[in-house]
Amino acid sequence: MSHNFANRMQSVPRSFIREILKVTQDPTVISFAGGLPNPALFPSEALAEAARTVIADHGGETLQYSTTEGHPPLREWIAARYRERDGLDVSADDIMITTGSQQALDLMAKVLIDPGDTIVMESPGYLGAIQAFSMFEPKYETVNVTADGPDLDALERALAKNPKLFYAVTSFQNPSGLTYSDEKRQAVAEMLKGTDTVFAEDNPYGDLRFAGERQRPLMAYRPEKSLLLGTFSKIAAPGFRIGWVVADPDLRHKLVTAKQAADLHTSTVSQRIVHRWLEDNDLDEHIAKICDCYGTQCNAMLTAADEFFPEEVTLTRAEGGMFLWAEMPEGCSSMKLFDLAIKEKVAFVPGNPFYVDGRDANTLRLNYTNAVPETITEGMKRLGKCMKDYIASL
Amino acid sequence: MSHNFANRMQSVPRSFIREILKVTQDPTVISFAGGLPNPALFPSEALAEAARTVIADHGGETLQYSTTEGHPPLREWIAARYRERDGLDVSADDIMITTGSQQALDLMAKVLIDPGDTIVMESPGYLGAIQAFSMFEPKYETVNVTADGPDLDALERALAKNPKLFYAVTSFQNPSGLTYSDEKRQAVAEMLKGTDTVFAEDNPYGDLRFAGERQRPLMAYRPEKSLLLGTFSKIAAPGFRIGWVVADPDLRHKLVTAKQAADLHTSTVSQRIVHRWLEDNDLDEHIAKICDCYGTQCNAMLTAADEFFPEEVTLTRAEGGMFLWAEMPEGCSSMKLFDLAIKEKVAFVPGNPFYVDGRDANTLRLNYTNAVPETITEGMKRLGKCMKDYIASL
Repeated sequence: MSHNFANRMQSVPRSFIREILKVTQDPTVISFAGGLPNPALFPSEALAEAARTVIADHGGETLQYSTTEGHPPLREWIAARYRERDGLDVSADDIMITTGSQQALDLMAKVLIDPGDTIVMESPGYLGAIQAFSMFEPKYETVNVTADGPDLDALERALAKNPKLFYAVTSFQNPSGLTYSDEKRQAVAEMLKGTDTVFAEDNPYGDLRFAGERQRPLMAYRPEKSLLLGTFSKIAAPGFRIGWVVADPDLRHKLVTAKQAADLHTSTVSQRIVHRWLEDNDLDEHIAKICDCYGTQCNAMLTAADEFFPEEVTLTRAEGGMFLWAEMPEGCSSMKLFDLAIKEKVAFVPGNPFYVDGRDANTLRLNYTNAVPETITEGMKRLGKCMKDYIASL
Repeated sequence: MSHNFANRMQSVPRSFIREILKVTQDPTVISFAGGLPNPALFPSEALAEAARTVIADHGGETLQYSTTEGHPPLREWIAARYRERDGLDVSADDIMITTGSQQALDLMAKVLIDPGDTIVMESPGYLGAIQAFSMFEPKYETVNVTADGPDLDALERALAKNPKLFYAVTSFQNPSGLTYSDEKRQAVAEMLKGTDTVFAEDNPYGDLRFAGERQRPLMAYRPEKSLLLGTFSKIAAPGFRIGWVVADPDLRHKLVTAKQAADLHTSTVSQRIVHRWLEDNDLDEHIAKICDCYGTQCNAMLTAADEFFPEEVTLTRAEGGMFLWAEMPEGCSSMKLFDLAIKEKVAFVPGNPFYVDGRDANTLRLNYTNAVPETITEGMKRLGKCMKDYIASL
């Protein structure tokens, strides 16, 4: 059966990662390819109790249709946390609940982007955002991400083109693990002031800091014309699909209109379970457990890299989040390395899909949150050997 | 704060119904305006137990990211029901779970519609579909719905324009309550054969039949190039946001790509709770309870209409679903009637938003599922008086 699809479907690749995950179903493969939180840390018992309570005792509301903006007490909980921890001047009204923060990416592009409009993306950048935005046929300007944030000269050139949107993952970026310094946050905010560009700051990993000092979101330095995205996927559980977006009234009004048309509202059941759990449990205590675990896993990966990776390969040193980013010498192909690695029963995500031009990259993403330290060490040993063999073969 | 929004945002009205629902927050207003299932029928206890079980006993999977296509056993359950009851040749692979069937409307337009492409809509038609489709800047061709289905001459003219999509609610339509006869289903299927038009059949209410004979979906008569949408919102509970779409592999592949970009996947928690509840309970027994209740409520509304409505006003006689549709004489304005009715503490949805041109309509939608029979009778008495006063004033 063939159909006449819309033009936009030609510009959107299927998720490369999901295709790779199929290859890694083999249980003997050690996979650094995923981006899943560690399920051993899910607070299942407490969430089960929260679920039972909200459905049994408040079924009439929990099971019914609800407002597009989201469950008001959950929105207030999120706003209060921003006020208390980051000094952001936000109220429940400023927050719209989304079906995972992926939905916020879709909606922001939907309300802002006409075909040919410019979006500034980090390079490398978050693949889910590239997928969501590409549906709306934008042009991309890219800005390299360095150890302390974006290349400011490149950003200045990109902003001169009057882009509609600048999208950034400012803390422990997916895929690179890199974080904007406070100085870069201020500098970027200054650069954005006076422009018409909407700055969309995605911060799914900011709470997962296991080293260094906590930072305020970039939005704290430039609150106007900004969107701030958050999610419970990494600090509670992704299966609920509960994210949110902070937006000024004008943008939020349009986002609500677009969300009504997209799914009416996010699962009331998911929203109320998460809110109940937040009320009855100590989130920061839970986050501390996650950070403790991920810090140990990250350390195992870094230690193994020092021992097993060839010297020519560089690796980012993340202070939080879920990923490290390796770079092989110029001219290497992470796709070719992937083919060799799979034979040695170790997997990762080649860098290609994290670039808007889908280039054949010499970079790769390594996830450390889904294997115990011993397994990480063994996988890195295998991968290091593949890298050495591959580089020697060139 | 003002922003440069995408052109598509100019063509999409905010939900008229949601605006009206604000007016009807007053508890002394008898509202026929909503479209909510009766919460007294939600199986809260059984769903609470299902929720506790899937999270406590299977937290690792229930709380984790999952596949875009949906929870495989739930897809198999849906496919088996179609095979057994409707003789449709579908398997789990043919089904994609969506975040409510509203999401299927968004995704189908996203993958099929370029600006200016033609969509055939019923007139009146489902407002949520008008909202979703309008985002993609289509042209509309409309086909009047009569007591036994669409005006076939009008449909033939519309199909001659080579539309990308024909969208229809074939059973107990929202807003009209009308249903396609089996003869009309066959005739429409014949008319569609050989065209390139994708037929999207939305069937949220088909199971809610309290009179007459069960019917097979129109898809049974023309399986190729068809989409069939379903939902658990009306037979279990809407708060989960679990719908689905049946699609051929080519269309489904694109829908999956679009859904990945839209929200990665539908709440795993919602999907697994609903599936567990279906496994442990008798859905048909539950549906029989709903039909019994809605039949009584519908009957109360029809009886009251006979007693209190002016003779010039006609009313559809639904055999199922949640709505009746009233038509006042030509030249009457249901918006003006609404203003009068609100003063008398009774509400409904004026027909306007159910027409793609947003015309000032002489029609109105009446929902009967959210009030007890005595309240329905009182509300219809108030509304009948308003109608008489209004028509006399012209």
